[in-house]
Amino acid sequence: MRTLENFTTIEQMETVTAKLKEMATFVHAETWQDRAKNQTPHCKFGEDGICCKNCSMGPCRITAKASRGVCGADAHAIAGRNYLRTIAAGTSAHSDHAREILHVLHSASRDGNYQVRDEQKLIKLAKEWGVAVDGRDIYDVAHEVAEVGLAEFGKSFGTLRFISRATPERQKVWKEQDIEPRAIDREIATSMHMTNMGNSADAAALLHQGLRTSLSNGWGGSMLGTEITDILFGTPTVWNTEGNLGVLEKDYVNIVVHGHDPAFSEMVVTAGELKELIDYAKSKGAKGINLVGLCCTANEVAMRHGVRMAGNFLQQENVVLTGVVEMMCVDVQCIFPALSVLTECYHTKFVTSSPIARIPGSIYIEFKPETAFEQAKEIIKMAIDNFQNRDASKVYIPDTKQKATVGYPCEQIIKHLDGVANSHVDELGSYRPAIDAIKAGVLRGAVAIVGCNNPRVRADYSHFEIMKELLANDVLIVATGCAAQLATKAGLLQKEAKYLCGAGLRRVCELVDIPPILHMGACVDISRMMLLATGIAKDWGVDTTQIPVVGCAPEWMSEKAVSIANYVVSTGLDVYLGIEPQVKGSSQMMELITEGTRKITGAGYIINTDPHELVKSILDGLEKKRAGLGI
Amino acid sequence: MRTLENFTTIEQMETVTAKLKEMATFVHAETWQDRAKNQTPHCKFGEDGICCKNCSMGPCRITAKASRGVCGADAHAIAGRNYLRTIAAGTSAHSDHAREILHVLHSASRDGNYQVRDEQKLIKLAKEWGVAVDGRDIYDVAHEVAEVGLAEFGKSFGTLRFISRATPERQKVWKEQDIEPRAIDREIATSMHMTNMGNSADAAALLHQGLRTSLSNGWGGSMLGTEITDILFGTPTVWNTEGNLGVLEKDYVNIVVHGHDPAFSEMVVTAGELKELIDYAKSKGAKGINLVGLCCTANEVAMRHGVRMAGNFLQQENVVLTGVVEMMCVDVQCIFPALSVLTECYHTKFVTSSPIARIPGSIYIEFKPETAFEQAKEIIKMAIDNFQNRDASKVYIPDTKQKATVGYPCEQIIKHLDGVANSHVDELGSYRPAIDAIKAGVLRGAVAIVGCNNPRVRADYSHFEIMKELLANDVLIVATGCAAQLATKAGLLQKEAKYLCGAGLRRVCELVDIPPILHMGACVDISRMMLLATGIAKDWGVDTTQIPVVGCAPEWMSEKAVSIANYVVSTGLDVYLGIEPQVKGSSQMMELITEGTRKITGAGYIINTDPHELVKSILDGLEKKRAGLGI
Repeated sequence: MRTLENFTTIEQMETVTAKLKEMATFVHAETWQDRAKNQTPHCKFGEDGICCKNCSMGPCRITAKASRGVCGADAHAIAGRNYLRTIAAGTSAHSDHAREILHVLHSASRDGNYQVRDEQKLIKLAKEWGVAVDGRDIYDVAHEVAEVGLAEFGKSFGTLRFISRATPERQKVWKEQDIEPRAIDREIATSMHMTNMGNSADAAALLHQGLRTSLSNGWGGSMLGTEITDILFGTPTVWNTEGNLGVLEKDYVNIVVHGHDPAFSEMVVTAGELKELIDYAKSKGAKGINLVGLCCTANEVAMRHGVRMAGNFLQQENVVLTGVVEMMCVDVQCIFPALSVLTECYHTKFVTSSPIARIPGSIYIEFKPETAFEQAKEIIKMAIDNFQNRDASKVYIPDTKQKATVGYPCEQIIKHLDGVANSHVDELGSYRPAIDAIKAGVLRGAVAIVGCNNPRVRADYSHFEIMKELLANDVLIVATGCAAQLATKAGLLQKEAKYLCGAGLRRVCELVDIPPILHMGACVDISRMMLLATGIAKDWGVDTTQIPVVGCAPEWMSEKAVSIANYVVSTGLDVYLGIEPQVKGSSQMMELITEGTRKITGAGYIINTDPHELVKSILDGLEKKRAGLGI
Repeated sequence: MRTLENFTTIEQMETVTAKLKEMATFVHAETWQDRAKNQTPHCKFGEDGICCKNCSMGPCRITAKASRGVCGADAHAIAGRNYLRTIAAGTSAHSDHAREILHVLHSASRDGNYQVRDEQKLIKLAKEWGVAVDGRDIYDVAHEVAEVGLAEFGKSFGTLRFISRATPERQKVWKEQDIEPRAIDREIATSMHMTNMGNSADAAALLHQGLRTSLSNGWGGSMLGTEITDILFGTPTVWNTEGNLGVLEKDYVNIVVHGHDPAFSEMVVTAGELKELIDYAKSKGAKGINLVGLCCTANEVAMRHGVRMAGNFLQQENVVLTGVVEMMCVDVQCIFPALSVLTECYHTKFVTSSPIARIPGSIYIEFKPETAFEQAKEIIKMAIDNFQNRDASKVYIPDTKQKATVGYPCEQIIKHLDGVANSHVDELGSYRPAIDAIKAGVLRGAVAIVGCNNPRVRADYSHFEIMKELLANDVLIVATGCAAQLATKAGLLQKEAKYLCGAGLRRVCELVDIPPILHMGACVDISRMMLLATGIAKDWGVDTTQIPVVGCAPEWMSEKAVSIANYVVSTGLDVYLGIEPQVKGSSQMMELITEGTRKITGAGYIINTDPHELVKSILDGLEKKRAGLGI
């Protein structure tokens, strides 16, 4: 194994963060490190999930003296309710995002702000849904597809359409276990109803609804979000790009797009390439416009335009602390409200654009599909006008950045696999070459590494450690979200990362011409991973729960992550967590999430806050799956 | 004013409760009094709304040392998010209940378990919604109406149909303020999304979505629930019945129906009248079957069948403590999980019937529309079989009960008003006689007293005190839910309660032949109150916010109450609260709910934990409204 000299270590990243923390002190700005410290120790009742705020008789908490809340809810009922609400909230985030994208598709037109960029995917989806395509204008098809998609949120009868994409075995499990999701929003409303005072107090029943609700995310909202985003903005393809704070440019107007919903950022990216605006920037003394991404919006625009990525969740304040960001433009989710206070210490304009994410102290420009492009131009102009306000005494741009090759949706992976298939004997468009490599033991399996950062643990450390060890053990990694961003920052998305891999994986990477960690997108794109696992299982002729593929969220933080973890488990894939779900105060809930779900879906959580122990469990888990398949 | 000799005082109720508490001690049972004591003092952060559990970076709480959570959310963001989630949960409860009822209507058939009992109301609603009725089978109409109703939960475009029932001025306010609710479940999902980590941190934006979401309850789910329940089981009419624990009968098989959704309890009531089951009860040594209601299910069956009412929310354990309840059969909402532990100390069978409210330790018989009647017979038989297991040493039936006249939906009120209209000169079917009485000053106004009990305050005391003072001041009361049940227990629903009234109100009661407190149903029926206020305003030619009609929830506890309070405020009616909403830790939220909403809807909260001061504010408020109208 070659050394890590071409990569950025966590220690190097931490040195930069420390330097930027000094810059924060210089401007008297508070950052997450301060706030996390001030919030420690956290309330133990909350951490253990045994604090209930669901009616005004309380709040109640389970203590030695009080084994039940005022209504009689015990630790299991309370932890179960909190957990289900967490899933409902996470589901709502991804699904509401998808709804917005569907409305954008519904308003798309040949000469409007939004067009259909992937007609082939649209046609495929239309056919899957029985929407007529022959002889129809592509925009008529698009609008009907949008209507059918929107109906998935609220149809009065039946279950979700994408269920039929799962393996037949999986569909049978969902039906028999009665966790086939009905309309997406209905599952959210039902979850909120069940957790309302005087309703369900049974941990198993609450968990059961959690699984169904999570499936309405993974095989509902998230999958719709991904499909429609691809149709509107193009299915991602391979791009060579760069990541980490070094992508900020001293002499350019730096604009950071941050959040999750690409509808607005796509417009900003397009507008940022306009000659008139570049010229305008030059007229203001800049060399041009440097648009970069942050968080999952970064993943979205990197995969479709090669836009460079400034960092992940816990880097959002660091970006501002460089002093060279003229504008931080956000959409929804994972946006620190702290950014409004922080940007006040700098010249940085903080622009919010969605009614879903209103933040006091920001400049609010409500994004509307019909005016999006004009609005994008307007805010870029505002950023350019702000260039002159930069305070040189506050500037520090770290030089850390890494090359990254991104953009591996299922379609791209298949394309690469087709490249190594023997076109005379092998069927094309199949995962068979990957399956053969797994069967041969060249690959031991695959792990989806996903999720956020969390100040509860050393930022990005677990991601990095787990990735390195898995690669060395011939485990292919697919990554999304903030985990993918760590891989970017560390340099693990370069094809050269093959030198960190075991001999088997290295050979595969060389043959297939891929990096050993495949960037699959934003957190909403974990639905792509479900389709990847399903595709492999189908081509293998087994169920998803049998293949040596698992999920891992080492540093998760968002409610979305809990919803995701549950739909991954419901899909039959084990999930390895590096942060404990907040249900520890209930032995029943702990049993249910680690073992109980196995009886329902065939999978469960494995929880370990030590990344080295966690990766050991993962490797053991993969080997067990292999043994189960007789390989 | 006559003395209270014909009424039951709070002190008398408390004497009974104390005696039953002794019975509990005798059987070593814990009750809410013990649990409330063990949970006191409550967590101050939770009480003030400044504890955030919406991601696993936390929980965070706002303290002197930490003015922001890890993400940067301040007290206003946190309290605002908690408040919006409370509204979302409350909305989901009423709305999910309505959805179930709509599905029952959709399955109704001439020879099935469920029929259409109020065809006239069905036809009226069909016409309102543009559903064809002429020449169609009533069940075809019913099924299409059910489909249109169900679509209100999830339609992809547009706003709710019932909005058009409001005054034109109110509709204008909702449109201009952008709080017209879209699909019901969408508002819930959007609320959950907005409150998810990294989304809205702006208290005003969160409150704004709260108003919109609450309207999707009051003018959406709740109104649908009420309409469809009337169509299925009949619009309530006046019944003379009785209330309080004395309705339990020593020599009868006592079955208590408890919860909110009448779909199952209707079947139990019907089955309980079957001669074969009464004979079976007699064969087991009982004199017959005594079916009584509790909580809002009691309100539902009392208004449609005159079924007697055993009590309200905080009486649910008392009922069991009498030792004579063979079965407690529950549906959804406000059911103490504690009942399963308590019933174990007795022979009482505790039957749960809904997947929404699973409670460990209960006998779970999942109610299905297609088998509901058979299931109802089965559980009644089970209760009868349990009669012989009663333990005489544990029996104590208090003799307290009161007569009550219940069942005053809008239709019934109009009927009574028609009775005093001069048919030669007055238009019938109008609220004009009531308006004339208000204009003349004979009535000073009307107050809707609603809501739960809450151990934070002396049970039922505030309800009682406020009711007495309002009646003495010539204020007509309409009541639902647990407030209506207190009125029942106290004897205030008798027509003789006129002796507690001022001269004006007494005269009105005598002329119109009504009690001075009109029982309008369950908490879901507060939608009836919105239509009542709207009807009065329309007949007056003004907006709802102008008339001397307000809402009051002296002892509220459920998240449903917060959702209700917000839709009442959104309808333009002030709401007087005797329990503080849990947002005290945010000055912004306190300002928003008391004053901020006035700028949006024309109404707000008035909060006072002292019932005597609260009633003074109410009277002042009514007089101000009168002054505003120049009367």
